[in-house]
Amino acid sequence: MISVSVVGASGYSGAELLKLLIGHSGVRIDKLFANTSAGKKLADVFPIFNKTLDVTLEKYSVESVSKSDLIFIALPSGEAMNIVPGLLAAGKRVIDLGGDFRLQDISLYEKYYKRPHTAAHILKQAVYGLPEWNSGQIKSAALIANPGCYPTSAILPLAPLLKEGVIEPTGIAVSSLSGVSGAGKNASLEMSFAEVNESVRAYKVGMHQHYPEIRTALTALSAAAPSLSFVPHLLPITRGIYTSIYANLKKNISDDSVYAVYDQYYRTAPFVRYSISAIPDIKNVNYTNYIDIGFRVNQEDKQIVVLSTIDNLIKGAAGQALQNMNIMFGFDEKEGLK
Amino acid sequence: MISVSVVGASGYSGAELLKLLIGHSGVRIDKLFANTSAGKKLADVFPIFNKTLDVTLEKYSVESVSKSDLIFIALPSGEAMNIVPGLLAAGKRVIDLGGDFRLQDISLYEKYYKRPHTAAHILKQAVYGLPEWNSGQIKSAALIANPGCYPTSAILPLAPLLKEGVIEPTGIAVSSLSGVSGAGKNASLEMSFAEVNESVRAYKVGMHQHYPEIRTALTALSAAAPSLSFVPHLLPITRGIYTSIYANLKKNISDDSVYAVYDQYYRTAPFVRYSISAIPDIKNVNYTNYIDIGFRVNQEDKQIVVLSTIDNLIKGAAGQALQNMNIMFGFDEKEGLK
Amino acid sequence: MISVSVVGASGYSGAELLKLLIGHSGVRIDKLFANTSAGKKLADVFPIFNKTLDVTLEKYSVESVSKSDLIFIALPSGEAMNIVPGLLAAGKRVIDLGGDFRLQDISLYEKYYKRPHTAAHILKQAVYGLPEWNSGQIKSAALIANPGCYPTSAILPLAPLLKEGVIEPTGIAVSSLSGVSGAGKNASLEMSFAEVNESVRAYKVGMHQHYPEIRTALTALSAAAPSLSFVPHLLPITRGIYTSIYANLKKNISDDSVYAVYDQYYRTAPFVRYSISAIPDIKNVNYTNYIDIGFRVNQEDKQIVVLSTIDNLIKGAAGQALQNMNIMFGFDEKEGLK
Amino acid sequence: MISVSVVGASGYSGAELLKLLIGHSGVRIDKLFANTSAGKKLADVFPIFNKTLDVTLEKYSVESVSKSDLIFIALPSGEAMNIVPGLLAAGKRVIDLGGDFRLQDISLYEKYYKRPHTAAHILKQAVYGLPEWNSGQIKSAALIANPGCYPTSAILPLAPLLKEGVIEPTGIAVSSLSGVSGAGKNASLEMSFAEVNESVRAYKVGMHQHYPEIRTALTALSAAAPSLSFVPHLLPITRGIYTSIYANLKKNISDDSVYAVYDQYYRTAPFVRYSISAIPDIKNVNYTNYIDIGFRVNQEDKQIVVLSTIDNLIKGAAGQALQNMNIMFGFDEKEGLK
Repeated sequence: MISVSVVGASGYSGAELLKLLIGHSGVRIDKLFANTSAGKKLADVFPIFNKTLDVTLEKYSVESVSKSDLIFIALPSGEAMNIVPGLLAAGKRVIDLGGDFRLQDISLYEKYYKRPHTAAHILKQAVYGLPEWNSGQIKSAALIANPGCYPTSAILPLAPLLKEGVIEPTGIAVSSLSGVSGAGKNASLEMSFAEVNESVRAYKVGMHQHYPEIRTALTALSAAAPSLSFVPHLLPITRGIYTSIYANLKKNISDDSVYAVYDQYYRTAPFVRYSISAIPDIKNVNYTNYIDIGFRVNQEDKQIVVLSTIDNLIKGAAGQALQNMNIMFGFDEKEGLK
Repeated sequence: MISVSVVGASGYSGAELLKLLIGHSGVRIDKLFANTSAGKKLADVFPIFNKTLDVTLEKYSVESVSKSDLIFIALPSGEAMNIVPGLLAAGKRVIDLGGDFRLQDISLYEKYYKRPHTAAHILKQAVYGLPEWNSGQIKSAALIANPGCYPTSAILPLAPLLKEGVIEPTGIAVSSLSGVSGAGKNASLEMSFAEVNESVRAYKVGMHQHYPEIRTALTALSAAAPSLSFVPHLLPITRGIYTSIYANLKKNISDDSVYAVYDQYYRTAPFVRYSISAIPDIKNVNYTNYIDIGFRVNQEDKQIVVLSTIDNLIKGAAGQALQNMNIMFGFDEKEGLK
Repeated sequence: MISVSVVGASGYSGAELLKLLIGHSGVRIDKLFANTSAGKKLADVFPIFNKTLDVTLEKYSVESVSKSDLIFIALPSGEAMNIVPGLLAAGKRVIDLGGDFRLQDISLYEKYYKRPHTAAHILKQAVYGLPEWNSGQIKSAALIANPGCYPTSAILPLAPLLKEGVIEPTGIAVSSLSGVSGAGKNASLEMSFAEVNESVRAYKVGMHQHYPEIRTALTALSAAAPSLSFVPHLLPITRGIYTSIYANLKKNISDDSVYAVYDQYYRTAPFVRYSISAIPDIKNVNYTNYIDIGFRVNQEDKQIVVLSTIDNLIKGAAGQALQNMNIMFGFDEKEGLK
Repeated sequence: MISVSVVGASGYSGAELLKLLIGHSGVRIDKLFANTSAGKKLADVFPIFNKTLDVTLEKYSVESVSKSDLIFIALPSGEAMNIVPGLLAAGKRVIDLGGDFRLQDISLYEKYYKRPHTAAHILKQAVYGLPEWNSGQIKSAALIANPGCYPTSAILPLAPLLKEGVIEPTGIAVSSLSGVSGAGKNASLEMSFAEVNESVRAYKVGMHQHYPEIRTALTALSAAAPSLSFVPHLLPITRGIYTSIYANLKKNISDDSVYAVYDQYYRTAPFVRYSISAIPDIKNVNYTNYIDIGFRVNQEDKQIVVLSTIDNLIKGAAGQALQNMNIMFGFDEKEGLK
């Protein structure tokens, strides 16, 4: 039984993480922290927890987590870097669901996140928490940078194809669609129902902070240096990401052989499902930690289309964080995620 | 004042066309035809027309349109080809909103529509009704093949870039998102609310009948022979199409120069709006006949992203049909569409 | 041809009003006013107006409407009362889409709107702009208080039944459902997509400002003094109101006789549709100025259920305002509304 | 550890039940039955079960459940009555999620379900499975008639008020809103996305089969013979029910006293949450087995408004069935439901 705390329990990822933690047999919830909601009952912020989790949100301090084995940080990007150095100094293990420790190259961070990085000295300790590729490092990590939602949906389908030389590293297009919960819990006209409903729009074209994350991770995992376009689109759904990838084939290859490549990498991965015939559909993964991958080879034009889908709040955030926790602390990787 | 009839008035495109025709100052509605709904009042099928359009739906016969100057056909693909030869023989002008006369190459039709073409002898008379490119031929056409919704959203943004050699003709990706009304009005589990809501799925990957239409039209308009992937996706919205196009640049080019290319082709087109800064959004075009085009040059990777949006029932169907009618009969191109 | 201006052109009701005014054959748009958006092009606030209405939003002053015959005010309640006295003093006619002049009883206004009324001296001049009941007064009014959206949906079905003594004036329940656009265009967590989507909640139970408006209007129109509960609910749709009314019958009455009562009051009303058999459905009225009314007598329990539906932005706001304008200026009541 | 089977595993309630059963520590899933899907893998019908539950759907026979301790029936109403007599004869315990055994009065069944009842001889054995009121009988029941979704949402808030004489038994209005999954998984134009989205409609006004269920259960539980109107409405959401109840007070009563009444009945009920201040919201109960109840006394008019919300697939179907199972077999009432 381990003891965990959550910093940023009043946002959507934090709430989702709490729902998962409640169902985990090996975890005791220690402290929950929030900023403006500190002092309130959790159930006053999220009435769904009424009668289920009776905890008061507190103002964070490093002293107050002295009894926690693990601290999850579910804050907006830019805030974790103020807290994590202190936690590591106190000997704590940390999983950060935000973006502060995902890019080892500070210049990329500062370009895309548009702020200085104030904890660059601990970046080296951060392990990119993609369990299907980095579980060895995750086991012993002090600091996990939990991957972004879009990157999770793009890297898992692309990395094997790049690494095995199935596709050209240039001319890749990553077209992603996301539900609104990915933007976090806050008041804005842009995210108001009347503006989002019955509409679709691309946003941050060429400027999204997940673009360098995708590129950096693919380079690290595949040894290719991919050139790609990434366009996120906002959809009128609450949760779920759908990513459609277009790439040029290096050589003629059959659907079966593509399947074999995925099988080689993910046969034993508990949360990766791939298929020759099935086309991914958000409703098949929502409220689960699965990523579904489908694909179609277009031999005539030497192109391939790869499709993937995840729940942005689970495999794209809280679920993947729990999966990382399971690996770090020796639980069954699936515990609390079925 | 011209007299028009509509065959297939009980579907979504037919209903949308009627709403537009009611508002057109130069049109008198002659007859409305339907199959299973023949004998019913239009307002019993679509209560929105109650007190507005009091007409009884009839069973179609060529004799019954003897007083019509123009017949719109808004039937599922495969049905128009049984009717149009008779109408042309009777000297009538026809606008077909379906797909039967869009592909001059019968083998493509039979491959993608999965049925034999029974009216091949009149295919030569069909004019592809894309007003921004073919208005000369449209003026005098007896038979208009009104473009598909996806093709309209893809061809208008792509044709100028291909024709002017801005982009490579190979490696193009067309990623389209559509509302559900595009699938027509019928009972199916796949299109039921509980299956579509809060979800997204790609469909007919590599097999959609609009794929050869896009390729054929682009080849005709641009003299390039583009190679492209086209993936349509179904979204939980009723109407609207969003198309995101990814292509490789032939040479370095600025956003301003791309704008100039669009300006060269569409400066006087009343329903094409393009912009350097604005990102298209379905809600800006729904219930209008506009197509909005946006774009971003990615000079580092020599790629370009082009985004477009239309209302699938208006610019993608009934509105474009009305625009064609306006050109055919000498009305102001915008009449009934503002 | 009359000249009209709109104060508050950057909100949802204002935008809807502009769409209708564009299509009206007897109107010239003079000036558009906004607060924070003053100085911007209308199309920068609402890109849907691009290429359609090229106007710059201005800061309001009474001098700047010197050439307008009519001024529409589409501001949040509480702001019109600062402007209208000056307009009336300048001899202008005014239609206020907000709530400032709907309640003749200031104490009710101050209780439900929670602010002092600063223009009580002109309240007497205000005519409640429900065309189906007050068209005589509307014709010559200087100031129209355009009815609220919920009240329109409740008063039109209830007034004939109360006036003719069909139902008891006590124990009436008005259960209303509304789309989100009714709450106006602004940033709030409560109205964000992720909070509203896939949910429903009642709000302002017993405290909504439309409650005294319904009660006051029904008392004035029917001479009954009804006692009723009114509960508004927020739905995950953009537009539309559905109102379900439950009342006790005074005596046994058939469905046919109820129909006859409605027929007596609304036979010539161009925008009221009522039916014995049809059950109202929001999609049959959206984007129209109609109200649909349906009902079912439950003779066993001496109760009646009456159902109504309107588009909150059209019959519930901008459309009814245009209808009032048509009456005030001698246009056909339906002009611009078909 | 008990062994359970599910007849009708290919519908929405069946799927939801399977998700809950997987998470229950004391249950082993024995057999899953379906009609048209028999022979298929469960994951081919519901891909969400891929990698989670690897079972083949079978054709039902009473012999094949010989090793099951409990059989859940999640079939459309009218089908369970063909199966249940055989199961009882074989000594099995049964929970029927459909409507066949909820009405002891066959004439009511035949009037509202519009078919003859073919298993009237076993009706006496059926226990109405509302755990908050009938747990004593549920413990030892052979056949549970699991309550309908609307009735659950109406009976739990109304029964205490009727029993304690807080409200008049006459003139009650029950206005219910439901997501689409309540209508089951099947192809129909009426339930297609394009017809349901952005709309609302009442249906089966005065004719819904849950109306006699509500009345019958309230009469049994409260000894009052309530007279009420019940109107269900279809909303564009997938899951969730919102019920707004309007009733006349017998005497003046404070909000606190109403709270005390609920407290008296539900203080120890694990899945009933009630509050003076909070207004129920579907998003607070979806994917849970809770019912949330809120209320407002309107002393001036001697009326009360009571609001409740449940997840129609959980507390309104599968969750309540599991709760009944827990009581029947001596598990903790909350097992598998947190």
